[in-house]
Amino acid sequence: MTSDLFRALFAPRGIALFGASGDPAKNTARPQRFLRKHGYAGFIAPINRTRREVLGEPAYPNLAAAPGDIDQAFIMVPSEDVPAACEECFVRRVRVVTIFSDGFGEAGAAGREAQARLVGAARAAGTRLLGPNSIGLVSTSPATALTVNASLELDRLPVGPLGVVSQSGSLIGALLSRGAARGIGFSRLVSVGNESDLSVGELMELLVEDAQTGAILLFLETLRDAPRIAAAARRAFAAGKPVIAYKLGRSSAGEALARSHTGAIAGDDRAVDAFFAAHGIVRVRSFEALIEAAPLVLGQRPARGKRVAVMTTTGGGAAVVADPLGAAGAELVAPPPALADRIRALGVRVGDSPLVDLTLAGTRASVYGPVLEALLGSDHCEAVVAAVGSSAQFHPQLAVEPILAARRAHPDKALAVFLAPEAPESLRLLAQAGIAAFRTPESCADALAAYLAWRAPRAVAAPEAAFEIPTAPSQRLHSPDEAIRIPFPVAIKIDSPDIEHKTEVGGVELGLRDAKEAAAAARRVLARVRAARPQAKIEGVVASSMQTGLGEAILGYRLDPQVGPLVLVGAGGTLAEVYRDFALRLAPVTLAEAREMVAEVRGFAPLRGYRNLPSGDLEALAQAVASFSRFAERPEVAEAEINPLIVKADGVVGVDVLVVLREGAPADDPAA
Amino acid sequence: MTSDLFRALFAPRGIALFGASGDPAKNTARPQRFLRKHGYAGFIAPINRTRREVLGEPAYPNLAAAPGDIDQAFIMVPSEDVPAACEECFVRRVRVVTIFSDGFGEAGAAGREAQARLVGAARAAGTRLLGPNSIGLVSTSPATALTVNASLELDRLPVGPLGVVSQSGSLIGALLSRGAARGIGFSRLVSVGNESDLSVGELMELLVEDAQTGAILLFLETLRDAPRIAAAARRAFAAGKPVIAYKLGRSSAGEALARSHTGAIAGDDRAVDAFFAAHGIVRVRSFEALIEAAPLVLGQRPARGKRVAVMTTTGGGAAVVADPLGAAGAELVAPPPALADRIRALGVRVGDSPLVDLTLAGTRASVYGPVLEALLGSDHCEAVVAAVGSSAQFHPQLAVEPILAARRAHPDKALAVFLAPEAPESLRLLAQAGIAAFRTPESCADALAAYLAWRAPRAVAAPEAAFEIPTAPSQRLHSPDEAIRIPFPVAIKIDSPDIEHKTEVGGVELGLRDAKEAAAAARRVLARVRAARPQAKIEGVVASSMQTGLGEAILGYRLDPQVGPLVLVGAGGTLAEVYRDFALRLAPVTLAEAREMVAEVRGFAPLRGYRNLPSGDLEALAQAVASFSRFAERPEVAEAEINPLIVKADGVVGVDVLVVLREGAPADDPAA
Repeated sequence: MTSDLFRALFAPRGIALFGASGDPAKNTARPQRFLRKHGYAGFIAPINRTRREVLGEPAYPNLAAAPGDIDQAFIMVPSEDVPAACEECFVRRVRVVTIFSDGFGEAGAAGREAQARLVGAARAAGTRLLGPNSIGLVSTSPATALTVNASLELDRLPVGPLGVVSQSGSLIGALLSRGAARGIGFSRLVSVGNESDLSVGELMELLVEDAQTGAILLFLETLRDAPRIAAAARRAFAAGKPVIAYKLGRSSAGEALARSHTGAIAGDDRAVDAFFAAHGIVRVRSFEALIEAAPLVLGQRPARGKRVAVMTTTGGGAAVVADPLGAAGAELVAPPPALADRIRALGVRVGDSPLVDLTLAGTRASVYGPVLEALLGSDHCEAVVAAVGSSAQFHPQLAVEPILAARRAHPDKALAVFLAPEAPESLRLLAQAGIAAFRTPESCADALAAYLAWRAPRAVAAPEAAFEIPTAPSQRLHSPDEAIRIPFPVAIKIDSPDIEHKTEVGGVELGLRDAKEAAAAARRVLARVRAARPQAKIEGVVASSMQTGLGEAILGYRLDPQVGPLVLVGAGGTLAEVYRDFALRLAPVTLAEAREMVAEVRGFAPLRGYRNLPSGDLEALAQAVASFSRFAERPEVAEAEINPLIVKADGVVGVDVLVVLREGAPADDPAA
Repeated sequence: MTSDLFRALFAPRGIALFGASGDPAKNTARPQRFLRKHGYAGFIAPINRTRREVLGEPAYPNLAAAPGDIDQAFIMVPSEDVPAACEECFVRRVRVVTIFSDGFGEAGAAGREAQARLVGAARAAGTRLLGPNSIGLVSTSPATALTVNASLELDRLPVGPLGVVSQSGSLIGALLSRGAARGIGFSRLVSVGNESDLSVGELMELLVEDAQTGAILLFLETLRDAPRIAAAARRAFAAGKPVIAYKLGRSSAGEALARSHTGAIAGDDRAVDAFFAAHGIVRVRSFEALIEAAPLVLGQRPARGKRVAVMTTTGGGAAVVADPLGAAGAELVAPPPALADRIRALGVRVGDSPLVDLTLAGTRASVYGPVLEALLGSDHCEAVVAAVGSSAQFHPQLAVEPILAARRAHPDKALAVFLAPEAPESLRLLAQAGIAAFRTPESCADALAAYLAWRAPRAVAAPEAAFEIPTAPSQRLHSPDEAIRIPFPVAIKIDSPDIEHKTEVGGVELGLRDAKEAAAAARRVLARVRAARPQAKIEGVVASSMQTGLGEAILGYRLDPQVGPLVLVGAGGTLAEVYRDFALRLAPVTLAEAREMVAEVRGFAPLRGYRNLPSGDLEALAQAVASFSRFAERPEVAEAEINPLIVKADGVVGVDVLVVLREGAPADDPAA
């Protein structure tokens, strides 16, 4: 059930090459060389204004002169000649045009306009565009190596189940080359370039339908079409084809780079985390884990916990994995008593350490295999790490065989193998058997932690909580002497649509105990603000009853331009900002999810009954989070915030509420 | 100027092997096989009660029967037979006995006693012990491969400048094997086992004196003799032989593992960071960086800043390094205008991105080399990252040559090369030229960040700050009605040596405005505490004047059992604990170091003039830190804490002061 588009991309009957060079040393000669080198069986039409032959094949002065069925064109001409080349393709109704040339969307306003014109013309003609600024694509079987990427100099395409969609063209080569050296194979690899038409999400859709693709790997610099990626990821999950992503932008430097590199707008990395998690995408943080992690998820479902058993013949080799794994939040578990006894019966010393160390003596297959089998078969853990020592280097077959046997007996438990020495042959044997094997302890820990954090795509939350968050009694005062009818003590705050940070301009006084104090404070506040901001429109002041509680929280809602509605709960005061101590999810959330969010915020520790102090009402806080997240049902709201939200022993109460509408008009303190 | 001990360890004239097997398949046959395989030219005496020949060499029933100069013995017999074997060595005055056998210090109380007896007997005989539980040692030139580690099956020992001291025996093999595959060579590798006698620190001293060792690598699970390691690290730095350490224990799981694995007591990882930094030790956090980072520091001195320039022909390949590098605190810098013009003159587009991307066109040596040379020669950065694409895989000589040429022109600027594809030959060529080359972007970023954080060993701070921290006026009240002579408002706190957390037992009341309120509060406090802790000795209550400031800090001092005196400053309240938001240094510190510590604490952001709020007196806080750190001059103090220390606009004032003496007697509130 592959589509027309799929065939034109990955198995085209004929390919036209615009700008193909006859000098085999030139980059623009590569696509033709690589296509033939790797056995592309279709028709190639080099388009060349002057030559009748290119690299031994007939060339044509223009596309109209070329015979046969041309399903895809690859364009390598200078940017100013791209529109004319495309026009020839549109006239001929070529299904896909892949543009290697740069100088479009990534190159300023003029480039963006030129790109928009190309897209418009392509749509009118019914042609799809890949790129511009795409290094091309590779299909391994049947072979279509249609790319300028030099990594295709390799002798044989590594065939396998991994489909790659990448916003970096050059890294397709790095992945292919590293995979080939490890016995890790690919189905398709696509460089999306500027995504002017064919996007990451649409390519994911094609790979979901592709019988040769078992898992989809994404290398991302930004998210250009999050909703389509989300939908494709959900379809992929349902089809048992997990999506694994590596995304730049963890540091602000990385974010800036992603931006300057692609011309795209990068967003907050935590929002990206929330997006991946909500749609069942596994996120790895080390580059090599992108190809190494696949066997952990291929054909598997998410785990129900984070418990990991570790076994080894090399104590140090297991510890270097366990240390970063623990730091990433996994729980290392020792075998329960009955299992420990079974392992002891094999002659292994077992203590209460989470590390089952067979020592040198345990390298024998008669010990290693049965211990691994026992751990894989036990339900005290969701995953097993096996660290292997020198035997992996000098006796790969012997070292790997007990692992394969144990795996065959228990194919469903996640298994990660770390090889302490340089052991390429063992890595290859394990990869060929579909077992996740790792060259570095850090990528082993990273991939396993990513697997353990993997969850099924989240069901869209149905409203559970009424949209109702108690707020402090407050009263707008048009003059300082207006009678106050709400309970004392009160706070007095300036009431002005033009002033965002009231404290900075002296616009707040707290703890006013009676009418006299409040009136004096109101006069001071008005005088200070008028002096500090003579231009600001001032409506008066607002009095609100002071709230004392056990702690403070901040609630936030934002319609993120990249990933959509987001809800945030964080520690109060400046903590959320200073420590980035907040939990973030796509909105809306269920009450259960809201509870999970509240549990993630470290700054609520004192509210959880820290050192015998009274506990805050975190259940009410979770209800407020779920309720607040329902702004997602109100598309006119761009942003909303309650800061602080006071957490009491019984209930919560919001003090300052800010809502910003999409047009940009602030609706300050709607509760006032 | 190598010592007697050095020669006996690494170039012994003769070696006795206790427990050597004649079956080449057995582990205990390995030392003899490996010694001969790698060309050990000295005399080997297998000690065997029954056989007259082992693996083709004459064997002896006991050590007394063996002829010649035996400088080292290697003991592989069962633990119960170890003392007798050692005794034979002591009698013969063998200089070094290396014990592979386990069952000693790591195996409970009986093992520890047996080990202590061995050490005592060895000292009396003038023999030094390596181990027990040591897998042995390797010297590459002249070759002495005296170990059970299977990695010595390799064909040729990789000779080079790296000396390794490891608390993990098996990982010596992993390092050797990975180094050999990369063209990275070693001088000596030693497994220290239980460190019953020869310790990490003493082995470091030997390597500092070793002409063949240029850098010292440590694989550590714990610190057993920190002062000696510190002294050796300082001598190594002075000798231009940098020390690079990988230490387990970053996660609590890792700490627990290190403990259960070695029987040693692991400490707080942040204290270890402070220790390494103070003594000029470079700490890497990824395993492979331990061998990859060496060229960054070999023959170099610490950098003065953290600015890194990045150049590449593969945008994605540079971004995957830059992202974690930025996250690790490096500052990525674009070329300044004049340099940018020079690079443009080579035909490269340069914008304001910190990434100089030559693109595919820049793979020509005529571009790559000069751009790299320009960056290495510029003082706008302390280090340069060069990321290389596919050319490194298929044309290693061509890819590497411009890098070597640029390096020759500028040998002093730190240079880290990341190879995006699988490119073993390029890695080898770079390693052989002494250039830091990396297989993964993460270890590249890790090693470079570690280099940028490297500082010369800290001079011991001379007292600069008087030992004087203002404390709040306070007064001990023997009865609730005693007249209060200090300024109101006051706090009332229970005065009892038996109660550490006063709040938990209702022992504190705050904000008492006059004598009447204070007396009532004192009565309530006494009643509550007597009810909650009827057994506690109660001296009365303490009144102290309430202090209001702009923020709170915590000051701590601790005589750490592992690394010695430590001083800490952290954010007040529960922040230091909840967010681990504190700065830690070996004590004492200078005022300049104290300022650096204050600058590291994120929670002081509001005190730095956040959002126009008034600034706190952080200079007074730094003076208090320097002053407090001088507890290091008072060896009777085990622990001290001021919590909170109120930071005002002008000065600081301590409220609760706690000092714990080494004998354990608390001297509560000495300021009271």
